[in-house]
Amino acid sequence: MGFKDNLRKIAPYIPGEQPKDVSKVIKLNTNENPYPASAKAEEIACNLRDDKMRLYPPTDAGKLSRAIARYYGVPEKNTFVGVGSDDVLATAFIACFNSDKPILFPDVTYSFYDVWAELYKIPYKTVPLDDDFKIVKEDYLQENGGIVIANPNAPTSINLPLEDVEFIIKNNPDSVVIVDEAYVDFGGESAIPLLGKYDNLMVVQTFSKSRSMAGMRIGYAFASDAIIQAMNDVKFSINSYTMNYPAVEMGVAAIDDEEYYKATIAKIVKTREKAVKELKKRDFTVLDSKTNFLFISHKRVKALKLFADLKNRGIFVRHWDKPRIGNFLRVTVGTDAQMKKLYEALDEILAE
Amino acid sequence: MGFKDNLRKIAPYIPGEQPKDVSKVIKLNTNENPYPASAKAEEIACNLRDDKMRLYPPTDAGKLSRAIARYYGVPEKNTFVGVGSDDVLATAFIACFNSDKPILFPDVTYSFYDVWAELYKIPYKTVPLDDDFKIVKEDYLQENGGIVIANPNAPTSINLPLEDVEFIIKNNPDSVVIVDEAYVDFGGESAIPLLGKYDNLMVVQTFSKSRSMAGMRIGYAFASDAIIQAMNDVKFSINSYTMNYPAVEMGVAAIDDEEYYKATIAKIVKTREKAVKELKKRDFTVLDSKTNFLFISHKRVKALKLFADLKNRGIFVRHWDKPRIGNFLRVTVGTDAQMKKLYEALDEILAE
Repeated sequence: MGFKDNLRKIAPYIPGEQPKDVSKVIKLNTNENPYPASAKAEEIACNLRDDKMRLYPPTDAGKLSRAIARYYGVPEKNTFVGVGSDDVLATAFIACFNSDKPILFPDVTYSFYDVWAELYKIPYKTVPLDDDFKIVKEDYLQENGGIVIANPNAPTSINLPLEDVEFIIKNNPDSVVIVDEAYVDFGGESAIPLLGKYDNLMVVQTFSKSRSMAGMRIGYAFASDAIIQAMNDVKFSINSYTMNYPAVEMGVAAIDDEEYYKATIAKIVKTREKAVKELKKRDFTVLDSKTNFLFISHKRVKALKLFADLKNRGIFVRHWDKPRIGNFLRVTVGTDAQMKKLYEALDEILAE
Repeated sequence: MGFKDNLRKIAPYIPGEQPKDVSKVIKLNTNENPYPASAKAEEIACNLRDDKMRLYPPTDAGKLSRAIARYYGVPEKNTFVGVGSDDVLATAFIACFNSDKPILFPDVTYSFYDVWAELYKIPYKTVPLDDDFKIVKEDYLQENGGIVIANPNAPTSINLPLEDVEFIIKNNPDSVVIVDEAYVDFGGESAIPLLGKYDNLMVVQTFSKSRSMAGMRIGYAFASDAIIQAMNDVKFSINSYTMNYPAVEMGVAAIDDEEYYKATIAKIVKTREKAVKELKKRDFTVLDSKTNFLFISHKRVKALKLFADLKNRGIFVRHWDKPRIGNFLRVTVGTDAQMKKLYEALDEILAE
């Protein structure tokens, strides 16, 4: 006996490695944006004075939620803002998945979904992707207490066409369907236009990828009144004030700088398309990416060896020791210069 | 039937009112600090460049947790940092209160405790304060699955002597005892010196009050290895990256500016002691405050009337329509100038 018996035992999510000194490595392992955040966001940080620290921030992130709602043409009352999309999704799991039936998500997907389900004791069932790592929409017609899909999916990088997403939402009126669009800006199709049509839909996005603000922790969701109400009830049952003033102020500045945001995305997409060719040239299987990363497998050399050899050369990529994807690597699309170093390193490793 | 059946129904915590334009009111309702944060924290905000936004922040808040640990003389491995003490406490409830026995806390205390217990389905039992609103240490000898006390307690403002806190910790070796010290810097006695002695103790503090940084969302906890491990496992099961870069950088600057911090506290304590006299002179019962707020009840005029009349005059204080404390007001200690306006307003109201 002892207090330790009352401590929660749980296997947490394991984030990608953050090297101590990022200046010394090429960091292609956590899908960060290689380009800086909007200069306008940097500038605004200097204007954080007095009341922007001393007082509690607005509980709804105030002008940040208004800026996001306006940018996407969604009513502010249907908008929710959190500390990164992980905070938004974790809140959504508590708020939306209260059935005795299992929630559904793909067997290969964002590895936080089963962690949240375990933490909150939500029954769940994984649905296998097909042999091409694609989501089969008909598989989501089975009885369930909710559905969450990442689209484009991670770490596969593959986009599910919007009509297939709609098929899943439409045929599950008794479930909340969460579409996690962390990577949608790099070539996916957002489900935002479906929001007016389906009350059971939640769309989640983030500033961490396309807006170069992983370090600011800003995520957001759009959904119907009933879902946002449940989200807020849960949020106000955990922490009323989640978004600090810098996140609010700098987030607004980033949203307002649309030109820079679009230019950054265009650069990454261009680098990605070039990378697909370069990697295929080197005998990699490359899944069709609509994201800022590539999911690749070499025809000859094992992923784990490539992972280790790249790391030895100061290039960090991501590998999971899991069924089906154990021979794949997930490589974030960096700058052209970083990718050139990646190709050179691969040429050395593959020539051994 | 419909997806709404799966939405979580819960009664959330209700935070104090945040008026739209704080420049037009005297805000004594949410225990914020009336003095600005350290100028050094403001300065540092201008140095947030590129990698401090683009990359994911350190999962453990890196140099902020080190700065806090160093300042309080606690090993870094026994330190946990979160998005305000609410985030830290909510995490602690999941991590530490996993018993079938009820957790204990006072009947009059921080109104988030029962909300977290409800949200996470933790059985709980409230323990009545005595007639003087004091915690009776012997009442915490009954069977329990954990204990949480705010010390000084809120909204009563009363401090429990450290030997009584130790009595509770010592006599509950099978329970984690959380001491929530949000207000300790204004005259309470911290349980930090007991950390080496008791593995079942967690001490929680915040930057929101004594460090004037409610808007930055920084809270922290100290505890034994086993408890911090459980805290981290839960944290990594919800959101790996909670503290954004501005919180980390500005938090460190605030910790380093000890002189300013102590001077601010001294000013507030001085204003508080003067306020006690002024309020007693006006026939208020004033509980013995070791915090940055006063819990007061007028001998003649009802709290709800005072609350409304003060609000009409642009002075916001806090009132709870709850058993035992329905005739009390909680008044944050503001600047001397703000308090003078409060006395003037009270003189008008009481003269009616």
